[in-house]
Amino acid sequence: MTTVGELGEFEVLRRMRMVRPSRGGHETGITLGPVDDAALMQPREGRELAATTDTLVEHVHYRREWIHGEALGARLAEANLSDLAAMAAVPRWALVSVGVRREHDPEDLVALQRGAIEALGAHGARIVGGNLTATTGAEWFAMTLRGEVEEGAAWTRAGARAGDLLAVTGRPGRAGAGARLALASAGGAVDAQWAPLVAAWLAPRARVTFARALAARQGVTAAIDISDGVAADLAHVCEASDIGVRIEDAAWPDDALLAEAASALQLPLDALRFGASDDYELTLAIEPAKRLECEALAASLEVPFRIVGEFTGTAGQMERISADGRVTPIAGDGYDHFRSG
Amino acid sequence: MTTVGELGEFEVLRRMRMVRPSRGGHETGITLGPVDDAALMQPREGRELAATTDTLVEHVHYRREWIHGEALGARLAEANLSDLAAMAAVPRWALVSVGVRREHDPEDLVALQRGAIEALGAHGARIVGGNLTATTGAEWFAMTLRGEVEEGAAWTRAGARAGDLLAVTGRPGRAGAGARLALASAGGAVDAQWAPLVAAWLAPRARVTFARALAARQGVTAAIDISDGVAADLAHVCEASDIGVRIEDAAWPDDALLAEAASALQLPLDALRFGASDDYELTLAIEPAKRLECEALAASLEVPFRIVGEFTGTAGQMERISADGRVTPIAGDGYDHFRSG
Repeated sequence: MTTVGELGEFEVLRRMRMVRPSRGGHETGITLGPVDDAALMQPREGRELAATTDTLVEHVHYRREWIHGEALGARLAEANLSDLAAMAAVPRWALVSVGVRREHDPEDLVALQRGAIEALGAHGARIVGGNLTATTGAEWFAMTLRGEVEEGAAWTRAGARAGDLLAVTGRPGRAGAGARLALASAGGAVDAQWAPLVAAWLAPRARVTFARALAARQGVTAAIDISDGVAADLAHVCEASDIGVRIEDAAWPDDALLAEAASALQLPLDALRFGASDDYELTLAIEPAKRLECEALAASLEVPFRIVGEFTGTAGQMERISADGRVTPIAGDGYDHFRSG
Repeated sequence: MTTVGELGEFEVLRRMRMVRPSRGGHETGITLGPVDDAALMQPREGRELAATTDTLVEHVHYRREWIHGEALGARLAEANLSDLAAMAAVPRWALVSVGVRREHDPEDLVALQRGAIEALGAHGARIVGGNLTATTGAEWFAMTLRGEVEEGAAWTRAGARAGDLLAVTGRPGRAGAGARLALASAGGAVDAQWAPLVAAWLAPRARVTFARALAARQGVTAAIDISDGVAADLAHVCEASDIGVRIEDAAWPDDALLAEAASALQLPLDALRFGASDDYELTLAIEPAKRLECEALAASLEVPFRIVGEFTGTAGQMERISADGRVTPIAGDGYDHFRSG
């Protein structure tokens, strides 16, 4: 195998730049590509720019034996796409910054580029530039993604009001369960029955299309992606919106596989549902009058979507009501990369 | 000392976000700050966006005993600012992505943030978001910087024509000499006489102000920053513009200190002048009729600026003419992070 060190920075970059999306033809707004000192882009008039960045660090966010190449590139893109979905923005331009050891396989980087380009391309976004550097120790892949959103239309964490409904997409907790099962396997294979959980962790799909369609209905008052876990991210919304929230246990989406994983991991199901996870799903505040419209839209796009509670006027108070009416508080602790992991 | 690991990701981020630029009051175009999933920004009408990214990796680009905290943050910002200067763009919005070990001092990160904010703020740009993650092994600091430039007015590598003059700012080679002297000291102190060279390497100032003023004169046909070294970056311009270049040795800026450093390092002076370096200076193609105007502007802004040759019609041919008329070819090899370092 030729290594990145043998091939050299410029040749590796040249090969990475040659990767083209399999779907083309859409308007990209790129005036000047990724070769110059900087890329040039043409924003559409009357739009604001939304910008986010996310990074995958070896040993911290992934291990090579679990994910690399195309899948890792796609994973990086989806993490960034999810942040833009949470603002209802249209993804457009990405920069990728890579730090790898000299002995890295250049083909793996080309595959990574391809995975990122395909994931972005599915939403009309493109890589416009980047940076490749040698590192010692843990490798890392950072992406910055810009998108556009109609002026004043971006969803934020602030804006939810008492009485708004709390909605979640997908099956929160699955990614965290998948990660824990993979860690518990200690480098061995993860049992096939957990494949949907591991996939939720390693191959998530950001809710970009759904978010854009939902935004057009104008019933969303606040949104966040739950990549820190439901409890932590709900706490962010409550803080920014200066309200509280009450979740109905009975309304929460059933997830038999997650319940089995909780048993296998000897964890309470709720620790998986509400605790630190890595789900690129959305939590939304919805105007009550828009409930049916939102549910119909989700059904038509085949997006799992559940109303699981409502926002309340008691600032900072997060609580759950069990099926028998018992109320318990929810702690808003999130995933801390320096403490866990 | 409290460590980042003890303080936790969210508290460190909170402290970093509290840093404010000492100079305020300028219009920032930030609709929503760095707290949400993504930042929101308002581009000006009729402008294109320019985007660049640059990263500093421990052991590869710096060592903690030479630079850290505020100086490292400023260095990171200047590297990115320089790429925008090379396009004559106005810097506006930055994202910062940081990977540090758990035992890192949080105050050092706050200082780094302050250094970056001050360097960006000097040109009216701001940090709008970022990411903090734990890493094992080498630490890294990545910045993505966006700027704006009037439609169609960005300088690129392409556009230089045969007959255009070749200009350089500053004293190319100084940063590379400073880095080599620091490396040669093997962790010890670098002799005070080399301070201006070490400063060129560790505390560069991007030519943003000069670039914007020069762009207003409309005499520049191509530009690049010479952070890979003069020869490598000139090769990029010649390739993109499909022309050649001829440098006159006699026109090159005198630099007695660089010559002394060459002796001390037992390197040919030309290896420092033209070879791999880290100078955040500009190389420009200038229309001959604009020469005096450009020189006068540089003088008024106190920017060292020299016409050192001209572009030729022989595509890809880079050569030098010595004072006695001897012509020798210049090789366009640049700094390769995987081979050197």
